[in-house]
This record gives sequence, structure tokens and C-alpha cells, in this order.
Amino acid sequence: MKSHTAYMTFNTSKRREYINITQNVSEELQKSNINEGMALVSAMHITAGVYVNDAESGFQEDMDNMLEEIAPFGPNYSHHRTGEDNGDAHLKSIVMGNQVVLPITAGKLDLGPWQQIYYAEFDGRRPKRLIIKIIGD
Amino acid sequence: MKSHTAYMTFNTSKRREYINITQNVSEELQKSNINEGMALVSAMHITAGVYVNDAESGFQEDMDNMLEEIAPFGPNYSHHRTGEDNGDAHLKSIVMGNQVVLPITAGKLDLGPWQQIYYAEFDGRRPKRLIIKIIGD
Amino acid sequence: MKSHTAYMTFNTSKRREYINITQNVSEELQKSNINEGMALVSAMHITAGVYVNDAESGFQEDMDNMLEEIAPFGPNYSHHRTGEDNGDAHLKSIVMGNQVVLPITAGKLDLGPWQQIYYAEFDGRRPKRLIIKIIGD
Repeated sequence: MKSHTAYMTFNTSKRREYINITQNVSEELQKSNINEGMALVSAMHITAGVYVNDAESGFQEDMDNMLEEIAPFGPNYSHHRTGEDNGDAHLKSIVMGNQVVLPITAGKLDLGPWQQIYYAEFDGRRPKRLIIKIIGD
Repeated sequence: MKSHTAYMTFNTSKRREYINITQNVSEELQKSNINEGMALVSAMHITAGVYVNDAESGFQEDMDNMLEEIAPFGPNYSHHRTGEDNGDAHLKSIVMGNQVVLPITAGKLDLGPWQQIYYAEFDGRRPKRLIIKIIGD
Repeated sequence: MKSHTAYMTFNTSKRREYINITQNVSEELQKSNINEGMALVSAMHITAGVYVNDAESGFQEDMDNMLEEIAPFGPNYSHHRTGEDNGDAHLKSIVMGNQVVLPITAGKLDLGPWQQIYYAEFDGRRPKRLIIKIIGD
């Protein structure tokens, strides 16, 4: 079994931002020389997420609106007793999930035609890390 | 390390449908001859999901109602500027997730007594694909 | 490829409870002698979840409130026609997800500084199981 590990760091200019990382994951897969296996893409912070969906700005607006409706920025969350103001970002991460696993077939990400991998920043404007872990043969 | 890859295609008669695929995943596992490992089951479209839960029609109604409350079909989503009408289906996929990973022990899916694997179609009535990727030894 | 499998059983005193299992997963990883790979942590029941987030009680309150808002305990869910009263627990499991996959690097869980692994009990006061499946080299 082979494995390959890479890290990415984001430092967004906005509090919330959705960043297409499909190309980055593909490049790490090429470096790994793995033909059959799985790639785990996981945020290393608790106020971020990872998802697979459309590279379409309208959808991103809709998703941001939905997450704001479920867990709006601002309210006096219990978590804010710690002095933090990012309670909403933790909750958004729970709803979305902080990771995805991608199938690898014949040396490529085995994704459908519209599937793109995104990092979802819910509390940016500071360095945040993500791990790409690939295992297989 | 061994690996095994299979694809399924769905073409539901209703827009939203929940399809038990536990037996299909088990059959692919048998073909793989893998005893210890993991099986990734992932929708290859961005308007579908995969989950593990109960094979019970009442629960499926409740889940459909909950997802419709969070992301109802119909409203004028920003995504619809593209000419699509399935903005809700993208959002439902984000809430549910588009994949699960199943443990394999002693050549079998190592699931609890009530756990069943489902494909969740949120925008059907056309061919949609899913991948089953199994790795292990 | 090596693999290691372990099971945990919970029997919470409250209906809903959030239990930090990071140390348990780390101990199983040490037993596995795996240096590079992935660990799957998955609830074996359909009224429980697994997540990665903060070991902070205020956040746990907020998360519990959010899940209660989305899928409150009590209403006359369709699932209750079976005689059960835990329709909300099934729905909370769908929103959160019932599993996470953790990266393993150099023999350790490769988590960010604040990331902790939690078992989320949504219908406790009876024995519930979870599986830890580790694969790698």
C-alpha cells in the first residue's frame, strides 16, 4: 500500500468563502503515483467544511443563505461565553461536514461530470489548514 | 492491497426517491474478495445523496419533510438563473452528504442490525450514477 | 496492508449526550501499529452520530439547540406509527452524519489543534455500539 500526504493553507479575505480545490487534489494524486484507492480531504479546523458540488456562483449563494438560516452569524450563542464570536461557524461545519472521501480509479479522481471539491471557510481572515491523505496502490 | 470498483445507474420515476442499495453493495463486496477494508459509496451527481439509516417508510417521509423544510423545491433560488429548477436538490445534497464509508470485517459489511445503505435521489427522472469503491485485503 | 477493528459500547444516562472519544481512537491506533492510513469511526445505530469539533460545552449546547430546532423531540412523526418515539433521533443522525474518517500520519491521528472526535447519542439510556476500523501500513 502506498500513501501520500499534503497540506493546504487558506487565508481568505472574507469571513465566509467557498474555494474550488479539485485541481489541487488532482495534482497531489498525480504526485502519489496511486492508481486505485481513496483520497480523504479534511479541514483541520472546527469552523470550516469540505463538500462536493457544483462550481456555480448561484448555488454558492443559495448554500450560504441556507446555512445562514440554519445557523446565522451573530446571535448570542453559548459558545460566545468563551470570548469567541464564531459559534455560527462551528454549527455550519456540523451541518455540512468537515470532510469528503474521493474514489481513485486508473490514477484519476473518479468523479461525475459536475462534481467539484470545495473547501468551505466559515470563519476566515486567518490561516486555516486542510489535509489531503491518499492511500492505495 | 486489493480494490474493486462498480457503478450503479438509477432512473427514478419520481423527482425524489430513496432506494435501498445494501444488497448491491454486499454483492460487490463478495466479488471483491476483500476481507478487511473499507467501502466508499458515493453519488456521482450533485443533486443526490447517500446515507445509512432505517428501511422504514415512515422515517423516509419524515426525512423528506425535514429536507423540504430546510430547502424546499420551487423558490427562486439564485442557481435558477442558469435555467435549472433544481436548486433545492443541490442544497439537500449538502445537508445529507453525498457519500458514506462502510467498514468491512471478515468479508462482510460490518453494520449494526438496523443499518441500511440508501441512495437518495433529489432530482430524478433521468439517469444518475453512483460509485462503489472497495479497498482492503 | 494492515487493519485493526475495535468496538465501543455506550449506555448514556440522558437521552442525548455528546461523548469525546478521541483518546479511545488514539489508543486503538497505537494497538494497530499502523503509521500511514485512515481510521473510520462509525456509529452502528441509526439514532446516533459521529462528528469532529470542539471540546467546549457552550458549543455542545448550541449544537443541541440547532438540532432540536431542525428536528425536535416529540412531534407526531410518521416513524412513530411503528410504536417508536425517536423519529427526531433518526433525523438528527441524517443532518450530522453517522461517521467520520480520520487521517493517520507517522502513527498518529493527523488532526488540527482543536479537533476532537465525538460520539453523538440522540436516543440513549440503552446499549449502543460504535466501530473503529483502521487500515493502512
